[in-house]
Amino acid sequence: MEKIYLDYSATTPMAKEVVKAMEPYFSEKYGNPSSLHALGKEAKDALEKARSSLAKSLNAKSVEIIFTGCGTESNNLAIKGVAFANRDKGNHIITSNIEHPAVLNPCRWLEKQGFKVTYLDVNKEGLVNPKDVEKAITKDTILVTIMHVNNEIGTIQPLAEIGKICKKKKVYFHTDAVQGFGKLPIDVKKMNIDLLSASAHKILGPKGVGLLYVNHNVKIEPIQHGGGHESGLRSGTENVAGAVGFAKAIEIAKDMKKEMEREKKLRDKLINSLLKIEGSRLNGSRTERLANNVNVSFKGVEGEALLIRLSQERLQVSTGSACSSKSLEPSHVLTAIGLTPVLAHGSLRITLGRYTTEEHINHAINVIPKVINSLRKISPF
Amino acid sequence: MEKIYLDYSATTPMAKEVVKAMEPYFSEKYGNPSSLHALGKEAKDALEKARSSLAKSLNAKSVEIIFTGCGTESNNLAIKGVAFANRDKGNHIITSNIEHPAVLNPCRWLEKQGFKVTYLDVNKEGLVNPKDVEKAITKDTILVTIMHVNNEIGTIQPLAEIGKICKKKKVYFHTDAVQGFGKLPIDVKKMNIDLLSASAHKILGPKGVGLLYVNHNVKIEPIQHGGGHESGLRSGTENVAGAVGFAKAIEIAKDMKKEMEREKKLRDKLINSLLKIEGSRLNGSRTERLANNVNVSFKGVEGEALLIRLSQERLQVSTGSACSSKSLEPSHVLTAIGLTPVLAHGSLRITLGRYTTEEHINHAINVIPKVINSLRKISPF
Repeated sequence: MEKIYLDYSATTPMAKEVVKAMEPYFSEKYGNPSSLHALGKEAKDALEKARSSLAKSLNAKSVEIIFTGCGTESNNLAIKGVAFANRDKGNHIITSNIEHPAVLNPCRWLEKQGFKVTYLDVNKEGLVNPKDVEKAITKDTILVTIMHVNNEIGTIQPLAEIGKICKKKKVYFHTDAVQGFGKLPIDVKKMNIDLLSASAHKILGPKGVGLLYVNHNVKIEPIQHGGGHESGLRSGTENVAGAVGFAKAIEIAKDMKKEMEREKKLRDKLINSLLKIEGSRLNGSRTERLANNVNVSFKGVEGEALLIRLSQERLQVSTGSACSSKSLEPSHVLTAIGLTPVLAHGSLRITLGRYTTEEHINHAINVIPKVINSLRKISPF
Repeated sequence: MEKIYLDYSATTPMAKEVVKAMEPYFSEKYGNPSSLHALGKEAKDALEKARSSLAKSLNAKSVEIIFTGCGTESNNLAIKGVAFANRDKGNHIITSNIEHPAVLNPCRWLEKQGFKVTYLDVNKEGLVNPKDVEKAITKDTILVTIMHVNNEIGTIQPLAEIGKICKKKKVYFHTDAVQGFGKLPIDVKKMNIDLLSASAHKILGPKGVGLLYVNHNVKIEPIQHGGGHESGLRSGTENVAGAVGFAKAIEIAKDMKKEMEREKKLRDKLINSLLKIEGSRLNGSRTERLANNVNVSFKGVEGEALLIRLSQERLQVSTGSACSSKSLEPSHVLTAIGLTPVLAHGSLRITLGRYTTEEHINHAINVIPKVINSLRKISPF
């Protein structure tokens, strides 16, 4: 029976066009971009063409795009690379308490290396207040890192406002845009973003390739040392096919405005329906919310049991973020916006994507209340 | 005109069987292995099956295989991860002066962090003397890292002897096996190897995926922090298709003994022919040499000019290692085995692979002497 995938924020299928674009680089144009012969040059040209497309999508220069192995690596490079390179200027970093573990854990690691980190609180909707960022900046602050879109509750942070403050205070501004890239327009120059992380597999591209935009004025060190690839910032043979696939994925995303309007209608239909279930609440903002994200808590329901039952009913959804789905801790994002651990455990994340149809949403609307009812009958709560 | 690829140590084409094995994981079985639903479980199962195959090929346990984004990342994780986790025991690392930059540069970076590194000399054939390793070990030594097969001159290091010494001295032993994995049999238990780096794209697998074998007794820290994937040692969404392709590549390599005998015959035919050219010399060992490697220097010839002329004659070959092919410095490997910078610059690396035929080698034998003659006529030397 066909599965209905509603977990696009965990990962996405590769678009057929992406696979097709990558195919020539598997067994025909397979050279190492560092090789000087014709096959090497051909690979290098493909890599640079991909870099250029991705740069343009952000209003950046080609030389400002560093290919990495994943979004997590991009975040590690941005945060640790800036921290170590600017230690002479200061040792203070500002972030929020609802960041992805790929930002929080590099920050925690830097604390062990003598850096100081401020974890800003967010409001009940999961929004960072730019004024809090401004207040937290001290003479020792070298980096502000605030995510673009939260992976669990879809909250869109006020990046441009934060960017303005960072520019004024002469502090580097990094954003983990893994969830927003290819879904919301980003202009790194206008928004005063100095560093930005993105990943291909969240936007119909392949797993195993990410990027870091680094403004050419940023002082940064590599964290992976070797042959000096990617302007010396990320050594390792370049994943040419992956880069080509990533570029094709962002090309597909060009009509993001239209696509997000489509997803938003489906999302709102689903949210409105789920909120009719007794004891339900929407987590995150209703307005500052990515068009693909639904996150709802249900009293008296255990999220994992719900997820497994829904999987049996074809629906592929998530509790909290996929990256920490195996943890027994309640979601740090849901507790940060004020949920009790018990309610946080009863939450469902449903994320839509390009191949989501009205039929899929109708199926979800039909199945979820039934499953919740049956679970509540056997619930110990 | 069909190009003749003789640069297999830089990278390889993906085998058709590898592409075929990966395909289902592009747009059908595309789940995130961390997701708890059916699509996630399917991806997780594929990832673990791939891990198990790769583990078996090394006589390791599944849990001892950590997937990474490339061989360079594996080396960085092994060297820095062991160094930081064992700082309380000592701060001394031993390596050789002919390692790949992906080993040398992490070592140099660690020196800046207060570690001490001994760079062992090699003999004229590029061999590390195990007795030198033993002599260099002090009470502060925590790690010995010696490569399996040199990427430029194909020298095979006496890993088992070095492993025995490390075991006796209770020092961790890491090997960068990027060039040897899938070409020479490796038994990490018998050879007393504690950590081993390998990469898929050198053995007909995809670019963008590597592995690190870590013996379960090794004390090691992650260097990339995030969601805690790969037993907490390498965070980041797993490249499922890449892992599946890597496993298929090592399955293809099962007949390595037969294939290496085939390549050796072709290699020896080529070496014997090239050594008839006046002013030529073979770099590296004649006996302790990987079956696919030819590295010859020609007096009075500039390697880069030679490479470009040969590329016009369909031959895709290399000077030195692809990773540093754009550097103007003479190869550190060739100078370490005693070549003058000028002679080092006049060297050619020709590396064979599974799709190399006798016709390809005959073409090389026919073309190379002619090109060298014509270059020497215009040489300023």
